[in-house]
Amino acid sequence: MSKYDVIVLGSGPGGYVTAIRASQLGLKTAVIEKESLGGVCLNWGCIPTKALLKSAQVFEYLKHANDYGLVVKEYDKNFDAVVNRSRNVAEGMSKGVQFLMKKNKIDVINGFGKVKPGKKVDVDGKEYSADHIIIATGARSRELPSLPQDGEKVIGYRQAMTLKKQPKKMIVVGSGAIGVEFAYFYNAMGTEVTVVEYLDRIVPVEDVDVSKQMEKSFKKSGINVMTSAEVTKVDTSGSGVKATVKTKKGEEVLEADLVLSAVGIKTNIEGIGLEDVGIAVDRDKILVNNYYQTNIPGYYAIGDVTPGQALAHVASAEGILCVEKIAGHNVEALDYGNIPGCTYASPEIASVGLTEQQAKDKGYEIKVGKFPFSASGKASAAGTKDGFVKVIFDAKYGEWLGCHMIGAGVTDMIAEAVLGRKLETTGHEVLKAVHPHPTMSEAVMEAVADAYDEVIHL
Amino acid sequence: MSKYDVIVLGSGPGGYVTAIRASQLGLKTAVIEKESLGGVCLNWGCIPTKALLKSAQVFEYLKHANDYGLVVKEYDKNFDAVVNRSRNVAEGMSKGVQFLMKKNKIDVINGFGKVKPGKKVDVDGKEYSADHIIIATGARSRELPSLPQDGEKVIGYRQAMTLKKQPKKMIVVGSGAIGVEFAYFYNAMGTEVTVVEYLDRIVPVEDVDVSKQMEKSFKKSGINVMTSAEVTKVDTSGSGVKATVKTKKGEEVLEADLVLSAVGIKTNIEGIGLEDVGIAVDRDKILVNNYYQTNIPGYYAIGDVTPGQALAHVASAEGILCVEKIAGHNVEALDYGNIPGCTYASPEIASVGLTEQQAKDKGYEIKVGKFPFSASGKASAAGTKDGFVKVIFDAKYGEWLGCHMIGAGVTDMIAEAVLGRKLETTGHEVLKAVHPHPTMSEAVMEAVADAYDEVIHL
Repeated sequence: MSKYDVIVLGSGPGGYVTAIRASQLGLKTAVIEKESLGGVCLNWGCIPTKALLKSAQVFEYLKHANDYGLVVKEYDKNFDAVVNRSRNVAEGMSKGVQFLMKKNKIDVINGFGKVKPGKKVDVDGKEYSADHIIIATGARSRELPSLPQDGEKVIGYRQAMTLKKQPKKMIVVGSGAIGVEFAYFYNAMGTEVTVVEYLDRIVPVEDVDVSKQMEKSFKKSGINVMTSAEVTKVDTSGSGVKATVKTKKGEEVLEADLVLSAVGIKTNIEGIGLEDVGIAVDRDKILVNNYYQTNIPGYYAIGDVTPGQALAHVASAEGILCVEKIAGHNVEALDYGNIPGCTYASPEIASVGLTEQQAKDKGYEIKVGKFPFSASGKASAAGTKDGFVKVIFDAKYGEWLGCHMIGAGVTDMIAEAVLGRKLETTGHEVLKAVHPHPTMSEAVMEAVADAYDEVIHL
Repeated sequence: MSKYDVIVLGSGPGGYVTAIRASQLGLKTAVIEKESLGGVCLNWGCIPTKALLKSAQVFEYLKHANDYGLVVKEYDKNFDAVVNRSRNVAEGMSKGVQFLMKKNKIDVINGFGKVKPGKKVDVDGKEYSADHIIIATGARSRELPSLPQDGEKVIGYRQAMTLKKQPKKMIVVGSGAIGVEFAYFYNAMGTEVTVVEYLDRIVPVEDVDVSKQMEKSFKKSGINVMTSAEVTKVDTSGSGVKATVKTKKGEEVLEADLVLSAVGIKTNIEGIGLEDVGIAVDRDKILVNNYYQTNIPGYYAIGDVTPGQALAHVASAEGILCVEKIAGHNVEALDYGNIPGCTYASPEIASVGLTEQQAKDKGYEIKVGKFPFSASGKASAAGTKDGFVKVIFDAKYGEWLGCHMIGAGVTDMIAEAVLGRKLETTGHEVLKAVHPHPTMSEAVMEAVADAYDEVIHL
């Protein structure tokens, strides 16, 4: 029986990053993977979707080339080639993880891992043991009872990124990051898209102003948006699908080629031996403390299977922290209030901290600043005037409570807010940090200035 | 005679921003402009060039559409339309400044302003007075004695952005931001471009690794790069130009349609009354203290006419600080060591703080980290794998001495480093600020990790 210091179940952005950090810290490490290295994120999530979205962005440029003084007489997309490019990017990244595993002397065990009592892991009948077993098995697309996925006419994100044929008409149920990204992608490629959202606004976890801007941008680009709406029934008996959608106005039946169900995720905690070992679970989340220790010593859990935000960068950060603690480092608990969230449609969305409503609900007296990209010189030059940066400060102590961005390239701009908030910056310090001109990033400085009635370009 | 609290000479990004802030602070303000509101930056610099560069970027997408699974059968650029778009963007921004002047109740005085003793300003024969006179007259293209500009065959940046006809062949002398941006633009549009740089590398103010990457990227895109090279003579007698270029290998004569001289700037301090008032000047810069006061009470200078970096955002920051001091605010002097610099070619360049060599020259013991975009998932998905982020830390106290970026979108990413450095962050804090996945901004976190031997994805 092979013995390790650390065994990680799952090689997603939680698992493989954890394994690398563990190995750096001198721990003999193995990672167990039942499918492809890199997990959902690399193979079926973050990375391949970004490749699709890049093709969509370039396709938009072809459509609007004239706006930039350019002439395109004949153009088209090759849907298969777009999908293939995305698959190639994912494959390349997965091979990259393979290389990193080798370079860091991490054993990769292919198969389905189950934890067992006595700090053991069973992989398809073979047993391994470790002082520390870290569960990072992630999650999958959640299925609604009213919307069972058949993988053909009612699909999840996995099928949505490898369709053999581009649908002419598509219904996207759910408007979180996944739903919105696919809605944008397929609409840009020429599919007629309807988004159905149960709550009263799309991207409902974002600040309400962001939701409003996104809905406006989506409608402008031709996406049909239905809010406070619920798909109650899907009839797949014909050549396409007929979805019954219930709204305040009553019921209507939408026809489409297929329905993408993007209503959240379900953790992968079934059949991995949690009950055997006695690991405590609440609903579908494994319970852990600040160092990702479960109730059973020697067993840990990180990433989507734990209660924190189900995001790749959270999983990575948790895994690093978990093994640094194991290695005896003096670690500081992760601040779940300072985790950025991104949506990579067009416009992009990036946010961190409290929304305006959340800040009010928590009883803060707040100062709010907002700067629209329509007033930004760089945005004018680039033709990307949709969107804004909105900031929320505590009026009393000056704490930067939240930052909400929607616009071109904002997913690369939110890091400033994350670092600033981590360092407990004041608005005045952001204002006096000289932002380069002309950039979209000036909008952060200007939004802060607006909060303090010092905005220049409004 | 009209009397003001503040008169600002010049309405560039120094002048007009100063005027707005002064007005916000309750000061009765006028701004004097001899040409268009917004000065060089808005009308002939930052903004219209970014519009041109955006057209170039989109044109590159047309050329490489196939890489993204797209098909473009017939495409072209319309050079006039590209230039017109740029002019329209500039005009729109200038009108925006006009609106801001009106909104902030700032008097705009059209004409050529000259300072006079007794806190007066003469504008084409009419006199105005103010308690505080701020000189913000900016700069223009510097002319080399060996390269006199005739505006047709030997041109400066102004002509370069409004050429009636796209040149077939072009020589760009100087490889600072302006030279490099035009070299990229014209090459992308199909002009055969040669860059001639006097020093031994292009973008010579940047870290040497950035220069190397830029040269590599330029050569890959077909730009001819000559370093340690000097244009000693230009013969404009024929139909085009013949430029004699001296290199270590000897002399050679390059033929082209025209030469763009981009060898820096010359301040506009002639004929504006400095001698009359007795304002002290060193070479072509007006001498000021930390609050932009000249040697003569009541007279101030900000922006390109003063010794700080000749950058729009520096001028704005100086002007704001200057009038906040006038208004009695407790202001902190600008940290010229924390000013970002950006070049908007492809790849983009953004940097702040010391280069590796500068840090060594100052006697620091340093930790250097570098993360190439070729190892970034987002860069792979977007097809933007050229470039890197390089960070330099003081080994002893952990100060973030410098950050150097080259790659897609980095001009919007440098703000994180500026704010982090302002807040005296340590590398560990940057590392533990969770950067969203998948973004280009992760490269900052990874470069810092590399400096401390904790990099995950290398």
